[in-house]
Amino acid sequence: MTDTVDRLGNWGRWGPDDERGTLNLITDETCARALAEARTGRCVSLAKPIEPASMMGGPFAPPGPPSPPVQQAMLYTGTPPMGLAEVLVVTPHNPGLTHLDALVHIPVDGHVYPGRPLAEAVTPTGVRHGSTTAFADGVLTRGVLLDLAPGDRLPPAYPVTGADLDAAEQRSGHRLEPGDALVVRGGWNFSRDPANPMPGMTVDAVAWMRQRDISVYAGDIGDAHPSVDPQVPLPLHMIGLARLGMPLIDGAEVEELAEVCAELGRYAFLLSIAPPRLRGATGVPVNPQAIF
Amino acid sequence: MTDTVDRLGNWGRWGPDDERGTLNLITDETCARALAEARTGRCVSLAKPIEPASMMGGPFAPPGPPSPPVQQAMLYTGTPPMGLAEVLVVTPHNPGLTHLDALVHIPVDGHVYPGRPLAEAVTPTGVRHGSTTAFADGVLTRGVLLDLAPGDRLPPAYPVTGADLDAAEQRSGHRLEPGDALVVRGGWNFSRDPANPMPGMTVDAVAWMRQRDISVYAGDIGDAHPSVDPQVPLPLHMIGLARLGMPLIDGAEVEELAEVCAELGRYAFLLSIAPPRLRGATGVPVNPQAIF
Amino acid sequence: MTDTVDRLGNWGRWGPDDERGTLNLITDETCARALAEARTGRCVSLAKPIEPASMMGGPFAPPGPPSPPVQQAMLYTGTPPMGLAEVLVVTPHNPGLTHLDALVHIPVDGHVYPGRPLAEAVTPTGVRHGSTTAFADGVLTRGVLLDLAPGDRLPPAYPVTGADLDAAEQRSGHRLEPGDALVVRGGWNFSRDPANPMPGMTVDAVAWMRQRDISVYAGDIGDAHPSVDPQVPLPLHMIGLARLGMPLIDGAEVEELAEVCAELGRYAFLLSIAPPRLRGATGVPVNPQAIF
Amino acid sequence: MTDTVDRLGNWGRWGPDDERGTLNLITDETCARALAEARTGRCVSLAKPIEPASMMGGPFAPPGPPSPPVQQAMLYTGTPPMGLAEVLVVTPHNPGLTHLDALVHIPVDGHVYPGRPLAEAVTPTGVRHGSTTAFADGVLTRGVLLDLAPGDRLPPAYPVTGADLDAAEQRSGHRLEPGDALVVRGGWNFSRDPANPMPGMTVDAVAWMRQRDISVYAGDIGDAHPSVDPQVPLPLHMIGLARLGMPLIDGAEVEELAEVCAELGRYAFLLSIAPPRLRGATGVPVNPQAIF
Repeated sequence: MTDTVDRLGNWGRWGPDDERGTLNLITDETCARALAEARTGRCVSLAKPIEPASMMGGPFAPPGPPSPPVQQAMLYTGTPPMGLAEVLVVTPHNPGLTHLDALVHIPVDGHVYPGRPLAEAVTPTGVRHGSTTAFADGVLTRGVLLDLAPGDRLPPAYPVTGADLDAAEQRSGHRLEPGDALVVRGGWNFSRDPANPMPGMTVDAVAWMRQRDISVYAGDIGDAHPSVDPQVPLPLHMIGLARLGMPLIDGAEVEELAEVCAELGRYAFLLSIAPPRLRGATGVPVNPQAIF
Repeated sequence: MTDTVDRLGNWGRWGPDDERGTLNLITDETCARALAEARTGRCVSLAKPIEPASMMGGPFAPPGPPSPPVQQAMLYTGTPPMGLAEVLVVTPHNPGLTHLDALVHIPVDGHVYPGRPLAEAVTPTGVRHGSTTAFADGVLTRGVLLDLAPGDRLPPAYPVTGADLDAAEQRSGHRLEPGDALVVRGGWNFSRDPANPMPGMTVDAVAWMRQRDISVYAGDIGDAHPSVDPQVPLPLHMIGLARLGMPLIDGAEVEELAEVCAELGRYAFLLSIAPPRLRGATGVPVNPQAIF
Repeated sequence: MTDTVDRLGNWGRWGPDDERGTLNLITDETCARALAEARTGRCVSLAKPIEPASMMGGPFAPPGPPSPPVQQAMLYTGTPPMGLAEVLVVTPHNPGLTHLDALVHIPVDGHVYPGRPLAEAVTPTGVRHGSTTAFADGVLTRGVLLDLAPGDRLPPAYPVTGADLDAAEQRSGHRLEPGDALVVRGGWNFSRDPANPMPGMTVDAVAWMRQRDISVYAGDIGDAHPSVDPQVPLPLHMIGLARLGMPLIDGAEVEELAEVCAELGRYAFLLSIAPPRLRGATGVPVNPQAIF
Repeated sequence: MTDTVDRLGNWGRWGPDDERGTLNLITDETCARALAEARTGRCVSLAKPIEPASMMGGPFAPPGPPSPPVQQAMLYTGTPPMGLAEVLVVTPHNPGLTHLDALVHIPVDGHVYPGRPLAEAVTPTGVRHGSTTAFADGVLTRGVLLDLAPGDRLPPAYPVTGADLDAAEQRSGHRLEPGDALVVRGGWNFSRDPANPMPGMTVDAVAWMRQRDISVYAGDIGDAHPSVDPQVPLPLHMIGLARLGMPLIDGAEVEELAEVCAELGRYAFLLSIAPPRLRGATGVPVNPQAIF
């Protein structure tokens, strides 16, 4: 076999430094023969059309399989490899990725928190105000889990009110004080299934958070999708984040937390939020730690 | 409604330049309250696990929906936008993308065409020999379409031989001369379906190309997948590309070409191959033009 | 040495399948010792701040070294590698990259060519009208080189008029007919140096192109930068591309072309423009071929 | 002016749905005129050569300005934007980025921790053993800062030994116990300046860590660069990470930490390490928190 392969080869045919291979076979005569074939200018492409895939994720993403929040390309670092490494392509606001929203993420009437014109806060080259820079030192505070549907999940499209939060708070045995972080369990994973619309916070629930002066919101649910309030389609994002300046942890995973809280009979904990120290972004992946 | 929203807001509460929003609510007292909750060091993550998606495509890609060859993120360029633009993430060797393989793409026994040690030709920071640099000026030559299954498609897993190419050449009415490009139609789209294994070139077919001194190969089929020859699993890539130094256009679209050739009764044409003038890559997307 | 290394190792200490290494050393006691250190909640980050680099290029890019138009990550494909491959990150409108602008690239008063509302033509997930889809089959036409500064370069900030194009056309010995491509040489490379402002086309020059019914513009110069006309800062893009619907090849390389034209005494040629067959983008890298 | 612009425009000339603009001007006659110009097949490219930039960073990166560890493209999400978002391209092992090395990052003789064959642990599509999956739940332990050059920095190329760590430990007033994290300050930022070679750990220093059963290493210095030991060029990575299975935090920022420790007279703290919960990677950005 190797004999066949070697006999077939062109290694050496155009010298040891050749980079053109069989393209060396294209001579003036080949070219003349080729030009003679172009008589009418009718052109046919031999390439498949390329439909680019959108990197957009989340509730407003195009239909079809969801874009992954993180993509990985393993890097070549020699033979044998000196080390193993990768490039990651990250879309922070993908709902499959637990992330911390910066205050600038949602504009209101051309302005962002605390009333800064959008064009001043964000430019094509980056964010100048209200970005993840505010989280660069980490956040350490008390977290309290309010489980809205213990051992169950909220009904589809359920509009969560302040009264619901009151009831869950009573069950928790703790009172949320100013500066505490509110951690909400609704028993849901992100869903784009029209038959299973996500429940979510109402304006009334956000008013409750304002009254209690919550510092950070984290939840397995956030804004309902589709919206349950036509006037304020995204209360948690448009009021909580943009107006209150209350950072949101989107897509938190709280099942294990609920189990541990139930087991310990304790729904309050030390909450450490320390995303990569990335400045100037609108969101950043995070791994919040509840420490008991 | 706007009244409710304004009443709820914190715009101005911590001054016009504030970037920390409700994080300002976390005081020393909040912290003390929080630390008091950390008694055992038991830690619970509130983040969903992130399974990165591999960017690898092609016959050896992981099972599941195929990675897209080109991904697009539309760029923010102001409000209103000054211009529309995007970032593209491209994996050139994806079989859904018509691309030109550089000679360095496939190594043989630690060497690449024309016998250069791999470690010398490729480093972790790029390609030094045998890259797309060779195509930077474009390629202009005569192309001849050999249709292996006119009006039909080859059987699954069919091993194409030199005799098959001879027969198709006779049907074409042209003879392939040294320097010509061979364009092959098998009637297939790339398939990873085990019930529909791709047909492909045998060593014998590649020997035919060597004998005719083909300069460039383009086809809707290439190497069979799975392989039909255990000794040389990828004859077109391992011998044609790596040993002959014959650039390959993978994943060509030739249906429209076959129709035009049939309509004109002419299977030869001017072939212009002018990929983006990218140096130092192992492959590059291309839109080959057959001009009549 | 190897003895030292082996003696030092933990391979096997926590079994053959262990993935946690020395993290296994963290016991309940370790944790208790650790928690005892957290007394005040004062937090210090041990991470360097990350300033992300903007991927934006071009005249409006941030100061500093320009972003590269194409970035390459060599991919790991096994040890030894089965093949060499890469991921490319591409920003098509980077001025260091010869590219073809789609008609949608520049909006005018909230509309794009031919008068379609921007919000209808472009969505966050891609372009629906006026994209590179129009170029997917390639463009084949006659090109004529107008050299505005033979053997020299235009003065900095020079405003090119219709009269300049007339004079160069006379020198060329050809007359541009409807459908021809105009290829312009100004003798410049893209410059952001304030001491060397780019020359560029005026509204008058674009009116000349409209009068001659040019189909495609390609040039080593385009719009002046900074602008020479406060009323229409980018005549070629805002009128030529957006209003005339005339695709632009930005950042063409025309030095070799000018030499060949001078050598042959012929300033007209077959121009083949066949960018990757990418649909739905606002721009795409291209390698235009002048064929004599 | 607007009159001029409107008069110049082609909006409507080829109907309201046109996407081809002035390409409509290319007729059969244009084509014939064009083909007549192709007489010899001499080809000239009008595209600038594209030199792709390598995404590789770190000590072994190509000369030139360093690649940024994180690149950001601001995303278009409508006019006005619905939200602000971005795509990030991240190279975790860039020395300008504080990151946590997974055990698989450095292979030794074709194997990775704890003795698993490399080809089994890593495939072109991702990492199967020894990845960041081990860190997904976060790490909580006691950290002790050993300041090797209080108020100063280590001399260039200084080889840190076990005796140096002993001396610093004595100054700290703490003793490192099994499971503790070692945090090292050498007073350096990453440097590739040949006149300022980085100091780093010797095999002797790593043996000290093994003896004390350190669980995690974090430092503003790591391995010397260039190497100070020809036999083991990277003791911390090749022995500490690969043999001991001791995760490394590369490129930690410890200046503020050293100031706080000095101010409090306390060099021990609660250390919380909670990188994004990314599975299957070789490294991940992290923001370690020292809590007092």
